[in-house]
Amino acid sequence: MSLYDEIFEQPVRLCLLLDRQRVVIEKIAQEIRNRDVQFVFLAARGTSDNAGRYANYVWGALNQLPLALATPSLFTYYNQPPMIKNALVVGVSQSGQSPDIVSVIESGKRQGNLTLAITNSPDSPLAKAADFVIDIMAGPELAVAATKTYTAELMAIAMLSAALAESTPMWNQLGQVAGWVDETLQQSRTIEQVVQRYRYMPQCVVLGRGYNYATAFEWALKLKELTYTVAEPYSSADFQHGPVAMISDGFPVLAVVANGGVLNSMVTSLEHLKKDLMAELVVISNNQRARSLAQVSFTIPETMPEWLSPLVSIVPAQLFAYHLTVARGYDTNAPRAIRKVTETR
Amino acid sequence: MSLYDEIFEQPVRLCLLLDRQRVVIEKIAQEIRNRDVQFVFLAARGTSDNAGRYANYVWGALNQLPLALATPSLFTYYNQPPMIKNALVVGVSQSGQSPDIVSVIESGKRQGNLTLAITNSPDSPLAKAADFVIDIMAGPELAVAATKTYTAELMAIAMLSAALAESTPMWNQLGQVAGWVDETLQQSRTIEQVVQRYRYMPQCVVLGRGYNYATAFEWALKLKELTYTVAEPYSSADFQHGPVAMISDGFPVLAVVANGGVLNSMVTSLEHLKKDLMAELVVISNNQRARSLAQVSFTIPETMPEWLSPLVSIVPAQLFAYHLTVARGYDTNAPRAIRKVTETR
Repeated sequence: MSLYDEIFEQPVRLCLLLDRQRVVIEKIAQEIRNRDVQFVFLAARGTSDNAGRYANYVWGALNQLPLALATPSLFTYYNQPPMIKNALVVGVSQSGQSPDIVSVIESGKRQGNLTLAITNSPDSPLAKAADFVIDIMAGPELAVAATKTYTAELMAIAMLSAALAESTPMWNQLGQVAGWVDETLQQSRTIEQVVQRYRYMPQCVVLGRGYNYATAFEWALKLKELTYTVAEPYSSADFQHGPVAMISDGFPVLAVVANGGVLNSMVTSLEHLKKDLMAELVVISNNQRARSLAQVSFTIPETMPEWLSPLVSIVPAQLFAYHLTVARGYDTNAPRAIRKVTETR
Repeated sequence: MSLYDEIFEQPVRLCLLLDRQRVVIEKIAQEIRNRDVQFVFLAARGTSDNAGRYANYVWGALNQLPLALATPSLFTYYNQPPMIKNALVVGVSQSGQSPDIVSVIESGKRQGNLTLAITNSPDSPLAKAADFVIDIMAGPELAVAATKTYTAELMAIAMLSAALAESTPMWNQLGQVAGWVDETLQQSRTIEQVVQRYRYMPQCVVLGRGYNYATAFEWALKLKELTYTVAEPYSSADFQHGPVAMISDGFPVLAVVANGGVLNSMVTSLEHLKKDLMAELVVISNNQRARSLAQVSFTIPETMPEWLSPLVSIVPAQLFAYHLTVARGYDTNAPRAIRKVTETR
């Protein structure tokens, strides 16, 4: 199994997860509804932290749950952890091994909160520490850079949202995701050719907003891990509060723009970057206006609802990172300096 | 008034704030204690968002309050904002003008939560929307890059922590901050010489953890805004979960390391970066071991408590960014492409 195979395995894995875990997730949603859960406290690192960013928007916009991303060092290095009441404490981790994430779940449980692990390892310390477990069923992931476990974590988060909302239309839309991912994977050859242009790109910025804020972070992380490019992710709004000063002629700005709530805000930002600051734009979008601003663009299915777009829009980004890694002659399965399981405290 | 003057004005502004706002802040703390506040929901952008990162650690570790950083687009672009109950909703903004931050406060208030504005503009829309206002009293800040309003926001946050804890030792320590900042400013000449080495540094990473996670973000933001360097901030733990793959011989890693809870964790990370990955290290620290690992280091007072160190450790970082801007021949008061007040929705 290689990184490339794992990217292409995503449609079938998403299908399987939707089919096998729906009942489990509906039971968990029932328990959450029975409790007076006032906010979600979520701990994760790396790729799983980006899945947490997605949860922030999905559960916030569709289930009205406010979410705090935990900073684990408050639980591992300082004397007294925060007092957490009436929360759903969630740990997201492919391996379920990192001690700091387990600490947050343990502390949440000790304080009487409902706890949930979202993991690819249902026998891991994280899974054992939590009241409930969603097994993301992605199968063994051997490449160091996470791809299929990321989309599976997103799927699990989206399924929990549909279950909490008890929404048949949402479940129906979830049934279409695997097909959209499959369709999007067909661009691999095109992407392989186009990345040649970025062979010597030393740095870039990656923009996204709303649901696809997570996609910007995950695209940037893949570029850092695999291609060693200094790639900094931003919400297009935060970007305007200072960092935009970095941009000059030809500076590469990558952006993820899905039809939906933040479309106009994103397009306005891209127009400014192109026309006033002469940035080089690489855009993943199902919007023609957004794509027309770009030097290079990749499509995602036209009719996809925004809330599910991050499960699909990350696919061209994964392929972009994969093919650029090959173009640079680096190892796609085992990048330098990192390992599959990172244990931090 | 120039950026340089504003950096040097910090000790007197911090003194003034401590003196004039203590009574106001103690009253606000009283109101917060009278309510069943279960978590803090904080909205901010840019430099003020970094002050929010500090609040996350101070209020979390010393007042046991969990904190969620709001993602304002949930309030401005999607139909239904999150349901927030039993929270303290805080907006932090120098100008108090940005509509998205005001939206979060308005929504929090409408839902029956206590609301607080921390701002340098007590007549601003943000201040008018909130139940309580802490005026950070930094005086007019004319340079586009925020410096004295950042340390004043941190001071206000630290004062609220002392007031919530009703801790005389904490108030006594707060009284020493202005002196520590003044002492640290004396390194300006040394820093001016040392930055020459980084005249052609195109990119770097900035690491911090715990309380100084905020300092890493703020140092990186000053470098982006003023020197146009692509500077990406990280917690040293998150950095290990993937991004460390970017590091090769001579890659510049800037780090903020204060004596305290996360010291050993930070020093272990720096040793790995230096010995195994041959990174170039620039370190701000009051720890001799941390400084000895660096090619270039700046000191902060030895005896400072960790919780107040971010108010002081940002000072060499501000001077580093200032002098590097001069060395590169850029405008220190008015960077390209950004303005003082950024209004995002």
